[in-house]
Amino acid sequence: MILDEGAGMGPGERRTFVARDPDYERRVRDSFVRQGFLRHCGAVIDELAPGHVTLSVRHAEALTQQHGFFHGGLIATLADTAAGYAALSMMRPEVGVLSVEFKLNFIAPARGERLVAHGRVIRPGRTLTVCRADVETVDGERVTEVATALLTMMSVDGFQD
Amino acid sequence: MILDEGAGMGPGERRTFVARDPDYERRVRDSFVRQGFLRHCGAVIDELAPGHVTLSVRHAEALTQQHGFFHGGLIATLADTAAGYAALSMMRPEVGVLSVEFKLNFIAPARGERLVAHGRVIRPGRTLTVCRADVETVDGERVTEVATALLTMMSVDGFQD
Amino acid sequence: MILDEGAGMGPGERRTFVARDPDYERRVRDSFVRQGFLRHCGAVIDELAPGHVTLSVRHAEALTQQHGFFHGGLIATLADTAAGYAALSMMRPEVGVLSVEFKLNFIAPARGERLVAHGRVIRPGRTLTVCRADVETVDGERVTEVATALLTMMSVDGFQD
Amino acid sequence: MILDEGAGMGPGERRTFVARDPDYERRVRDSFVRQGFLRHCGAVIDELAPGHVTLSVRHAEALTQQHGFFHGGLIATLADTAAGYAALSMMRPEVGVLSVEFKLNFIAPARGERLVAHGRVIRPGRTLTVCRADVETVDGERVTEVATALLTMMSVDGFQD
Repeated sequence: MILDEGAGMGPGERRTFVARDPDYERRVRDSFVRQGFLRHCGAVIDELAPGHVTLSVRHAEALTQQHGFFHGGLIATLADTAAGYAALSMMRPEVGVLSVEFKLNFIAPARGERLVAHGRVIRPGRTLTVCRADVETVDGERVTEVATALLTMMSVDGFQD
Repeated sequence: MILDEGAGMGPGERRTFVARDPDYERRVRDSFVRQGFLRHCGAVIDELAPGHVTLSVRHAEALTQQHGFFHGGLIATLADTAAGYAALSMMRPEVGVLSVEFKLNFIAPARGERLVAHGRVIRPGRTLTVCRADVETVDGERVTEVATALLTMMSVDGFQD
Repeated sequence: MILDEGAGMGPGERRTFVARDPDYERRVRDSFVRQGFLRHCGAVIDELAPGHVTLSVRHAEALTQQHGFFHGGLIATLADTAAGYAALSMMRPEVGVLSVEFKLNFIAPARGERLVAHGRVIRPGRTLTVCRADVETVDGERVTEVATALLTMMSVDGFQD
Repeated sequence: MILDEGAGMGPGERRTFVARDPDYERRVRDSFVRQGFLRHCGAVIDELAPGHVTLSVRHAEALTQQHGFFHGGLIATLADTAAGYAALSMMRPEVGVLSVEFKLNFIAPARGERLVAHGRVIRPGRTLTVCRADVETVDGERVTEVATALLTMMSVDGFQD
């Protein structure tokens, strides 16, 4: 099982990762269902592959800010969680994932039927994993980028998610 | 009415601001009650002064991650909202506030009875306002810093909050 | 002249921009030669297209940190400048560009013969432009990603670069 | 020797740290003189205390951008280096410091006789240290804040600075 560690691919190219832990999918789903806040936000897992996790929510008044758009805090929540799980999907079995920090730019008002966050690993590492997250709204056929983020995750020994 | 605009005070010193709009408190409260997501998170306004807004929530399972701590996305939500309102409290009457971006570092696990976010203006400006946010948990007498953030807000003409 | 403004393209796809100002190349080059610090760092412009600017430097002891790698501050300098010029190349003629803020993750030690920074516009706007920057080292055939950044730039009226 | 590790002090209060390594000053100075880029920028150490390091440069054309202000990349260089050394001053003897990432907001144009960067530890830790940096210009009596940053540093075993 070879892990692709920074082989110098360009930023726009799609990277295919191989997970260290064949059981990564169960680890992510087990952790996901135990997160009360994600359930409270109505989040679901749309995609789950090594180094790439997609979460989404459907529009509801309980998820909005004063103009009826999806709330910036919800956007940040989905970005951080999707990226955290993308990082976890690449980690060795006996560790858990912790968010160290993240930075997020809001790009457009988040209006639409669904809010979708793609978390992707940029650089997997033994201690730190750098990720990006891209968040979009989907309204019928139309897909609009609403936010993008750069995130740092840490592996923590003896800390099961 | 003099606005304190970057007179070179040191980073650790408390800055006292004077609001441009005497009606700032009503503007912030009116906007707050229209945010469905804040109500859904159980957030309340604890403090509201020019350039300084404090929000908090009480612990609930619906606000947690897999270890029972307050969720990182909730921490980010309170930080961004408190800072956004701190910025709005300093803006002239005919504009609204928009989050441009923010970066947040997680400092300690967020366990406790209450999660409290202080949003403070660092540098007010005509178009952009730079803020910081400090988030802590309160458990009886004990106060623990759990996150700190640096945020950029923008004034938007003809965009009432 | 149609400007591509957030038409919802995915994050990994290459975006082709059309400049608002046909004279964008001269504006960028005129500004570049007046920056004493860039000359002091030995930076040169490798590529200059609407929304995409590449700068580089050749290895020199004067550009290193204590292990002989390119200094993190130099990496940040090239990232911020390349992104700033990518943003400027998309702006209308009568404005200048200002860096509002940026966040940069270091991904690998920066060792090699050349340090190359690609600044790209993600989201052009009237007041704010969101950019990314990717920095790599080049050593013969080998290209290694060393840093990635997310940056916010502002258009400033009556402020010629 | 008691290390102050996140005792819950408020964000505006000054924190006094005690170094783990009594020889911290020599470690920082030894590393500083080996950084070619810092010498090339004319940087000097003004202050060196556990958890607090101040660096500065005097104005020179070689350090400027197109309007004659100190270059944003130089501001970032001093901020990252000062914070890195503030973190190193708090680390145990057998490790080195590595910049993981940082985010910096520009607050005012950096004009003045001297550019001064204060790096301060916010949260020391075994693996990660969170810092802030505040950069100002000094012109005779006048001190102006020009930038502020939030930075993450990592301890690396067997990696002497």
